Amino acid sequence: MGSKNFAVGCDMGATKIISCVVDSDGKVGYECRFPTEAARGTKKVGENLISAIKETLSNCKDKNISGIGIGTPGQINFETGEVLGSAPNIPGWTGVNVKELIASEFDYPCVVDNDVNAAIWGEFLYGAGKGCKDIVGITLGTGIGGAVIVDGKLYRGSKFCGGELGHISLKYDGIPCRCGGIGCFEEYCSSRGIKRMAISKLKSKKRSLLVSMVEGDLKKITSELVTQAYHKGDEIAKAVIRETGRLTGYALSIIINILNPEKIIIGGGIATIGDFLFNAIRDGAKERSLPVPYSQVSIVPAKLGVMAGAIGAGSLILKGAQ
Amino acid sequence: MGSKNFAVGCDMGATKIISCVVDSDGKVGYECRFPTEAARGTKKVGENLISAIKETLSNCKDKNISGIGIGTPGQINFETGEVLGSAPNIPGWTGVNVKELIASEFDYPCVVDNDVNAAIWGEFLYGAGKGCKDIVGITLGTGIGGAVIVDGKLYRGSKFCGGELGHISLKYDGIPCRCGGIGCFEEYCSSRGIKRMAISKLKSKKRSLLVSMVEGDLKKITSELVTQAYHKGDEIAKAVIRETGRLTGYALSIIINILNPEKIIIGGGIATIGDFLFNAIRDGAKERSLPVPYSQVSIVPAKLGVMAGAIGAGSLILKGAQ
Repeated sequence: MGSKNFAVGCDMGATKIISCVVDSDGKVGYECRFPTEAARGTKKVGENLISAIKETLSNCKDKNISGIGIGTPGQINFETGEVLGSAPNIPGWTGVNVKELIASEFDYPCVVDNDVNAAIWGEFLYGAGKGCKDIVGITLGTGIGGAVIVDGKLYRGSKFCGGELGHISLKYDGIPCRCGGIGCFEEYCSSRGIKRMAISKLKSKKRSLLVSMVEGDLKKITSELVTQAYHKGDEIAKAVIRETGRLTGYALSIIINILNPEKIIIGGGIATIGDFLFNAIRDGAKERSLPVPYSQVSIVPAKLGVMAGAIGAGSLILKGAQ
Repeated sequence: MGSKNFAVGCDMGATKIISCVVDSDGKVGYECRFPTEAARGTKKVGENLISAIKETLSNCKDKNISGIGIGTPGQINFETGEVLGSAPNIPGWTGVNVKELIASEFDYPCVVDNDVNAAIWGEFLYGAGKGCKDIVGITLGTGIGGAVIVDGKLYRGSKFCGGELGHISLKYDGIPCRCGGIGCFEEYCSSRGIKRMAISKLKSKKRSLLVSMVEGDLKKITSELVTQAYHKGDEIAKAVIRETGRLTGYALSIIINILNPEKIIIGGGIATIGDFLFNAIRDGAKERSLPVPYSQVSIVPAKLGVMAGAIGAGSLILKGAQ
């Protein structure tokens, strides 16, 4: 039993860093959470990451640790560990070399990858993607992340920037996105898209539980409140979620026509709304995909929950840094 | 010298079948062209294909022929040779097993692939994609075709339906496409997109060479006439081509954000317009792509011209049916 391999896996989120020890069956041992404190600057973020890893290592001294895997927002040079760009949730993170940061503190091999790549790697090995070869992962939350596995390998693109599925443009003359593009999927179907759509719908029809939930101040609407109102049967909230699902399906139809995946796995906070959302997503995807590739794909919820990223990051060490 | 290998390569187009013999350096020997005669039914199309191959074989009896490679429109099951769907240029072609058709007449190994896959395979081996690993090919013509090479292999998707780049939706509430989708790239930037855009622009501003070219009957406008008018300096034609290029660039930005290719190779009749079109395409792609993956891609014209498909189809036999 002493021969079992373990790794530390860290998932860096906008608000918290999840660190854990994971074994080669994907089982999580010790885990801890540290705040990211992105607003306090990248030095502090780095310190928090190191603290999380130290705490994890000090709690698994009896284990044979093979290395440290880290999933972080942004486009990551998987070979060097450098953050190449686009990590709006951690300002200043672009240009940081996470691998060097870890090497300066720890004497373990380290791999660094995009956080959604790490999460889908976890789902591929132990979750909703188990047994598949060609899958796409989407996270619906504050932002929309994406990752692609082709023939059992993470697809990183020619220079590590593939899979930016949140920035598929749904409408070339649509809403400007903070990435500089126009009409991006993320602007329509992330938390801020849901908020925007709810406010827009409420402007024309004021009778909704949502209005009383925010005491008439529509600016206070959040995607969480929309979800709560939906669960209480509110019609406007229901319409917002249906429309969000349908638009998500439209974005997936683009992915289906290009990549012809066997499975699309959807995680993130918004995905927890459940069947009503997933059915709307499937309807949208069916409506807009080419019939043959649509008939070959299943669109399913992620299985590993909030631990997917940390499990996947650790598993990049244990199960091939592919 | 007698040890050199050769293959027959056929490219099935909407109007003609190009058949040739190609060697393992991509050099074309004998070539011939037969009409497709799609309107006369799939039996006739099959007969024409067989005639083209017979004619080619009878003209290279001295050569060591390794097999027959065929590129055909549609989504093709590369393993069985069956046309799975979506070949509007050859009505009824869906369901036909091209490999069995060839096997019934010839005693050579045969591979069948999508026509754009074949063409990009040719460009990858001997043309604009030589030396690259991750490329995307687009053909701008009557329709818009696409193909993807990942890590030096043709990406066919989990079930052979990947790379349908013409059916990327540019605008979810845009123009209905004959595929059943809405706002497809093909509806905006193929020959019919150019025609539609030219007519629309002429309705608001009638002073254009195009009007006299069609003697006032705008329905007679074609993308070829728009190209001719552009070369003669017509401002409306120039605006149509610039806009077509920009919209093509928008579609490419979706591909760039998802696939992060090192090169995008554009062929097809419309691509022969040249630099003015390509600069507009690059402007559109730059405007809408994420900066890092945009900085890593070059957008270039195809090099092999009309022979790309036949060369690539033959090369699927000679250089790995990947």
